[in-house]
Amino acid sequence: MSYPEGKIFISDVTLRDGSHAVRHTFTPEQVASVAAALDAAGVDSIEVAHGDGMGGSTVNYGFATHTDLEKIEAAAAAVKRAKIAILLLPGVGVIPNLQEAYDAGARYVRVATHCTEADTSAQHIAKAREIGLNTAGFLMMSHMADEAKLVEQALLMESYGAQCVYVTDSAGAMVPEQYAARIKAVRAALKPETEVGVHAHENLSVSVANSVAAVQNGAYRVDASLAGLGAAAGNTPLEAFVAVADRMGWETGCDVFKLADAADDLVRPLMHQPVRVDRDTLSIGYAGVYGSFLLHARRAAERYGIPTPQILMELGRRNMVGGQEDMIVDVALDLAKSRSAS
Amino acid sequence: MSYPEGKIFISDVTLRDGSHAVRHTFTPEQVASVAAALDAAGVDSIEVAHGDGMGGSTVNYGFATHTDLEKIEAAAAAVKRAKIAILLLPGVGVIPNLQEAYDAGARYVRVATHCTEADTSAQHIAKAREIGLNTAGFLMMSHMADEAKLVEQALLMESYGAQCVYVTDSAGAMVPEQYAARIKAVRAALKPETEVGVHAHENLSVSVANSVAAVQNGAYRVDASLAGLGAAAGNTPLEAFVAVADRMGWETGCDVFKLADAADDLVRPLMHQPVRVDRDTLSIGYAGVYGSFLLHARRAAERYGIPTPQILMELGRRNMVGGQEDMIVDVALDLAKSRSAS
Repeated sequence: MSYPEGKIFISDVTLRDGSHAVRHTFTPEQVASVAAALDAAGVDSIEVAHGDGMGGSTVNYGFATHTDLEKIEAAAAAVKRAKIAILLLPGVGVIPNLQEAYDAGARYVRVATHCTEADTSAQHIAKAREIGLNTAGFLMMSHMADEAKLVEQALLMESYGAQCVYVTDSAGAMVPEQYAARIKAVRAALKPETEVGVHAHENLSVSVANSVAAVQNGAYRVDASLAGLGAAAGNTPLEAFVAVADRMGWETGCDVFKLADAADDLVRPLMHQPVRVDRDTLSIGYAGVYGSFLLHARRAAERYGIPTPQILMELGRRNMVGGQEDMIVDVALDLAKSRSAS
Repeated sequence: MSYPEGKIFISDVTLRDGSHAVRHTFTPEQVASVAAALDAAGVDSIEVAHGDGMGGSTVNYGFATHTDLEKIEAAAAAVKRAKIAILLLPGVGVIPNLQEAYDAGARYVRVATHCTEADTSAQHIAKAREIGLNTAGFLMMSHMADEAKLVEQALLMESYGAQCVYVTDSAGAMVPEQYAARIKAVRAALKPETEVGVHAHENLSVSVANSVAAVQNGAYRVDASLAGLGAAAGNTPLEAFVAVADRMGWETGCDVFKLADAADDLVRPLMHQPVRVDRDTLSIGYAGVYGSFLLHARRAAERYGIPTPQILMELGRRNMVGGQEDMIVDVALDLAKSRSAS
């Protein structure tokens, strides 16, 4: 089969994953203006939540200035056509968040787990389907699992009721060949009516190419954000992906200039620092660790006088994953000790 | 044949193509410090010249603060292992520049023409070989020619004595599939001992992926610059390309962390503005026009109140190429007139 067969589904994540880059300070007014621009530019869904999903506003993940529900309501009121989506990590978010989000206007949910822990999503996926949310599973840190493992985990999510399964490169650690192989394997294993999604990060400077390779191998939903807003080097830049899709002759339903205007006029002015591939963010992809680890690692680097890339590479060697943010200081301390001992 | 067969040749262009991003203000001291860092990080060649090549310091292309020869000498004195390269566009540079550059320490030259005008490079390539410069042909704006045309032009350059032919995406307008097809065709047509090179730009956010696709299809030399320094969205970011090459298991001879340090510590502080994919620079790739047109188009946009992307798209429609910078104001004027008439 040759992909894509028809229109691609464009899933914007500016107001959720992008939230990391503004330390979860989006106001309902900012949410409304970005959502309205995305809707007018033609995207299919707009994800709104704390960067770490529903209920992420905690001391561990960083407090948000506004609640998830306030922001979901603001986005839902601002759009005419696009659907509002949420992300939920079981354990960070809880089952009652699903109905609350639905009542606030959300119609899509992605239930996210580590790429080997799909079994923790069973109840959340089932409940989301029962409520009437279009429900996807979201396999994070997929570079840490091979094709066979991802297929097994994707089939679990499908068995719970997921209508789509995402192969998610949380660390921006994959190159197009690797992404293509994983998407192809998952696509081949799932029922034809179950969709496959790609969620790339820019740390190795190949997020657009990874998304293109994924679509060519069967991905239907593509996650991206305006100006690539996101943790570390950011997400797939939406306006660039749509420009490339246009060049490939693919249908996205999106207007590249409206997206580029929204990126430059609405999103870039909000950035706390440039979202780019630099020494620290490249190290995230090279080490294969979470983009949201970067701020924690920088703080530890400053405190203990260890270069940030060195901390990130050590976190990668130790296979640290989301939820272990509190271990970053320990790693920096270990490195500082071994330095003074040597 | 499966590529790459051995080590890739890394050709840095920070101090030549990157010069556009600092309006040709590199000092000999800056050249020396960047060249020394590149040499220590393991690159094979370091190109030094005005952004538009030898002799580019003119009213049309922008005056440089220092001469090409001063900068070549500074670079040559700073390196232990890497070769110093120059770029020469026949008509901008002249034949005597070749010997002067050799005497100042250059050992590689790329003779650059529009992708359909290889015949203007015959004398320059022959003379460069005679002097003892390792000589490449450089087919600019290669997105404007199909495979058959590029093969014809590459064979011309080879017949003049070129030891390498570059497929150059000056506008950053190509996607990986297109780049792969062009490289493959040129690789298949040239003698086995003639090398093939890739020179990508980041306007569509796929420069690293284009370079990877090119290497997989037979390119041996890869142009890139620290932090992607270059006109518009810049060149292939060197440190990111090397990180991806490492992931692919390819040998570059380069240290990704030394490159990332040089990018952040030496090059980013020199940028006059961020080198990134934004509304204007994305339009360069989408329209398929020279990155160095951007500053001219922005000036015209400000003067005549026409959005920069609109001017760039019109330049693309009119197939404007390098050397026609003076036409940009005419295009802006035409757009302003047609607007007030409508």
